[in-house]
Amino acid sequence: MPKNIRTDLALEAHRLSSADGRKIEGVIVTNRDENGITVSRVEVTNTAGEKAIGKSIGNYITIECPNLKYSTEDYKNVCGLIAHEIREMTDISSSSLTLVAGLGNRAITPDALGTETLSHIMVTHHLKKHMQEYLGDNISGVCAIAPGVLGTTGMETVETIKGIVSLLRPDLVIAVDALAAADISRVSNTIQISDAGIQPGAGVGNDRDGINLETLGVKVIAVGVPTVIDARNISDVDIPEELSPLMVTTKDIDLVIKKCAKTIADGINLALHENITLEEISSFTG
Amino acid sequence: MPKNIRTDLALEAHRLSSADGRKIEGVIVTNRDENGITVSRVEVTNTAGEKAIGKSIGNYITIECPNLKYSTEDYKNVCGLIAHEIREMTDISSSSLTLVAGLGNRAITPDALGTETLSHIMVTHHLKKHMQEYLGDNISGVCAIAPGVLGTTGMETVETIKGIVSLLRPDLVIAVDALAAADISRVSNTIQISDAGIQPGAGVGNDRDGINLETLGVKVIAVGVPTVIDARNISDVDIPEELSPLMVTTKDIDLVIKKCAKTIADGINLALHENITLEEISSFTG
Amino acid sequence: MPKNIRTDLALEAHRLSSADGRKIEGVIVTNRDENGITVSRVEVTNTAGEKAIGKSIGNYITIECPNLKYSTEDYKNVCGLIAHEIREMTDISSSSLTLVAGLGNRAITPDALGTETLSHIMVTHHLKKHMQEYLGDNISGVCAIAPGVLGTTGMETVETIKGIVSLLRPDLVIAVDALAAADISRVSNTIQISDAGIQPGAGVGNDRDGINLETLGVKVIAVGVPTVIDARNISDVDIPEELSPLMVTTKDIDLVIKKCAKTIADGINLALHENITLEEISSFTG
Amino acid sequence: MPKNIRTDLALEAHRLSSADGRKIEGVIVTNRDENGITVSRVEVTNTAGEKAIGKSIGNYITIECPNLKYSTEDYKNVCGLIAHEIREMTDISSSSLTLVAGLGNRAITPDALGTETLSHIMVTHHLKKHMQEYLGDNISGVCAIAPGVLGTTGMETVETIKGIVSLLRPDLVIAVDALAAADISRVSNTIQISDAGIQPGAGVGNDRDGINLETLGVKVIAVGVPTVIDARNISDVDIPEELSPLMVTTKDIDLVIKKCAKTIADGINLALHENITLEEISSFTG
Repeated sequence: MPKNIRTDLALEAHRLSSADGRKIEGVIVTNRDENGITVSRVEVTNTAGEKAIGKSIGNYITIECPNLKYSTEDYKNVCGLIAHEIREMTDISSSSLTLVAGLGNRAITPDALGTETLSHIMVTHHLKKHMQEYLGDNISGVCAIAPGVLGTTGMETVETIKGIVSLLRPDLVIAVDALAAADISRVSNTIQISDAGIQPGAGVGNDRDGINLETLGVKVIAVGVPTVIDARNISDVDIPEELSPLMVTTKDIDLVIKKCAKTIADGINLALHENITLEEISSFTG
Repeated sequence: MPKNIRTDLALEAHRLSSADGRKIEGVIVTNRDENGITVSRVEVTNTAGEKAIGKSIGNYITIECPNLKYSTEDYKNVCGLIAHEIREMTDISSSSLTLVAGLGNRAITPDALGTETLSHIMVTHHLKKHMQEYLGDNISGVCAIAPGVLGTTGMETVETIKGIVSLLRPDLVIAVDALAAADISRVSNTIQISDAGIQPGAGVGNDRDGINLETLGVKVIAVGVPTVIDARNISDVDIPEELSPLMVTTKDIDLVIKKCAKTIADGINLALHENITLEEISSFTG
Repeated sequence: MPKNIRTDLALEAHRLSSADGRKIEGVIVTNRDENGITVSRVEVTNTAGEKAIGKSIGNYITIECPNLKYSTEDYKNVCGLIAHEIREMTDISSSSLTLVAGLGNRAITPDALGTETLSHIMVTHHLKKHMQEYLGDNISGVCAIAPGVLGTTGMETVETIKGIVSLLRPDLVIAVDALAAADISRVSNTIQISDAGIQPGAGVGNDRDGINLETLGVKVIAVGVPTVIDARNISDVDIPEELSPLMVTTKDIDLVIKKCAKTIADGINLALHENITLEEISSFTG
Repeated sequence: MPKNIRTDLALEAHRLSSADGRKIEGVIVTNRDENGITVSRVEVTNTAGEKAIGKSIGNYITIECPNLKYSTEDYKNVCGLIAHEIREMTDISSSSLTLVAGLGNRAITPDALGTETLSHIMVTHHLKKHMQEYLGDNISGVCAIAPGVLGTTGMETVETIKGIVSLLRPDLVIAVDALAAADISRVSNTIQISDAGIQPGAGVGNDRDGINLETLGVKVIAVGVPTVIDARNISDVDIPEELSPLMVTTKDIDLVIKKCAKTIADGINLALHENITLEEISSFTG
């Protein structure tokens, strides 16, 4: 993996690390086509793989969907794919309790994916206690939290989530966050789902602040979309991170965030509640 | 206390409970004038007082300031009074850690006082670790959290805060929330500061969900401003809460929230950091 | 019409004016049932009718839908009804140009219906010039504007719209705004569509500031939902408007605004573009 | 001026056009120091100057203030400098009427400078009619409008403003907008004030859509801060604008927008009303 390039996408990290197409030990990559949507799986199986591509052991699913912004058909297909992949990663029953965490800063458009996703999540935990008869049998318990960012809370995101998890004791945490890609063409077109959690900072070896099974004591599935690329990725100029923390994003980022947030939220909604339809979800979340 | 009237203000509860002006056992009320601003103190000293006025044992300071919306002079005075009263209720040093919790629903204007206040709070906890030399000696540690409301998180507010407190272990929680008054003339003109915490629902005897020393294990100071009155308080029509949860508010509520949030935040900022000025705060919070 | 009661709904004004059920000269009221949704038409035919119920000459359609907040089925039906009624009131072809004006103050939740509706409107005017081939033949021209409110712009809403109309020269203005009802049970459950435009203030005889054919020189259709009731309508206490401008609203007003805005926007979208489906609209508006 | 570099700052355009330091015919550049703040003036005096640096004939004042984000002292100084420069460019009396236009898209953080500025502008036009005695003698008339962007309104910004100007007939338009710089170090540190109006697109020769005296028939002063740089300015990769409209911005852009908006608004407020103080403005705007 080239040192000076930053990407949160395992698929990109793998490609950048095997520029010559050689197989990398400890990393298995497969892909399939679903109605014109490419679904790839990067499986990091050991520490050799971790080191080679700079991503923790685990599975990384990438759904590539160039028309997500415009196509209702693709929206439905992608919702179904997200639900399928989440269900592959974990067992969910109507007695499960899931905490959906919407990460990032709602005041900065390209960083608002997580908080915007929350506004479409079917939150049911409080209703299950008091209104079970209204909900139907297949509705699992869901809570939602926007933990905020270090600069506005003074606390590491993982600490805030850890505190809530310690009391709520959910069976699963789904963390939604905006990602950084290396390549401009990935921005807003790709959804990554991973059971390796979220690694803030530059990758392996810095698990202190990661949001994952180790730090939270509960399974974590991370869902994200690249909304920015690091300015250093497109510039020859040497930009030190400390002095000039820059980001590159697209001029239609507000629409991208709206559409991706709705798609991710409905994928999660489908995953968490059995036999529910997008129409029923829509009548619930407004 | 008349059963059908709801108020979060201890001063109103006291007046409504002693309509004939008779002294109430277990409640001491005093007041003073500060530059034209009336500062009252209601002290509930025992369970007889609790029952009589429906407010928990503790101190309730009321700052009445009719011109807060318009006057910069009053803004400064009220900031100073809030700081003074908070400091009277607790010991704060530069080694203290305080969690400021902004309660309520940011999507509903009259309920957004708490979250709006957070945007003016000097958050320092993360900076104290890494940038102490930049901050000066008298800056105490401050974290801030917007826990959200039951309907959007699925969790009771107190549970979310309890989880964070259990890990962060602050010395003090300051909870800011919009209040309900009985009398229209109180809306937006009165600030209440209390060391009895926040009692959701209708008062004494329902400590399950209260945000206070008992539930959190740490001192709680509550700060609020009435932004609504319960519709039942101004209507002869019998409106059952379950069917028609209504609220009455003023048509300039957006401006009221902005001004009160800034005033409360700066009062808290002054209280938490010694020798700091409003100008220095302003250069920090923007 | 009782003097001390304020309502923007012609149907309510009519009922309040004929408490004894007597027919009112100059007002014709009919209604029909559409899949469990009651659609009423109040037709004010002359100045006698205007005086009697305090509403200008014109047609007022009322769609009553108690389950709009929860039901996707009703959402679709109501969208279709709104589209049908708008098309009954005016001729729209693919060469039409419509200006949709989202009235009200986006900073006050119950007043944000108009601006929130705009975020779901298919805006096409700029695309028709440059991307006609992408749009299909049946797409008419649509512009959208949020003129703001007097307190934040310094200008009467009608003046701002008049200025834009004078240059844009649209064939039709559709003005969306939050309304005030007399009866609590109307709030958030009723949609009114009228070709009489919008009358700010207390009704007939004050056409200075009205947003209508006379003031704009172009046909105006007004669409609204009651989101507040005037505090004086539920109180025996005499509240002078100048001193205490109060409003009563529901505690789930944020959800009401979201759902009603989407429903009205999609009803307008269906009305303005022939043969388009809700799915196609959704892929366009995100 | 290098063809492939885009900047809205005349000072940058001048430097890039005279890399060797040679004097450019038709352009006069001077600068002064004001309490550590550099104030430069670029005067484009003829069409030769226009062509050379790609900026229309007129004056461009640049206030460079690296500490604006942090310093209250600098905030006050910069407000005063903005007011002074605006007053140098035009005559304002208490009988003047000014339209302040907040340009850009409020849904995209780095493009929200204009709309955010409006929230701090003293809007007085409606009050002068009805509450003159409350305002004092030195308050001039001010209206404010957020015309929105082409993608959400379907109308060119200049058309919307033109419509309003044609009815309101103000003496002056002040247009506030986010700018693009060529150099990263300019972002958020520089304020440009110009009497040449705003030129959308790539400069001279494209006056169709400009917001200026010619298109509006009234004097226009433009005020802006660079909040983005065009991705092409920092990348060797060839990025066609149509396919990949990217922007580069800073990670603290939310705070930059808040601070710059308040500073610009208060500079404009000081310019428009004689003898008013920042404290009085603050009590007015909240």
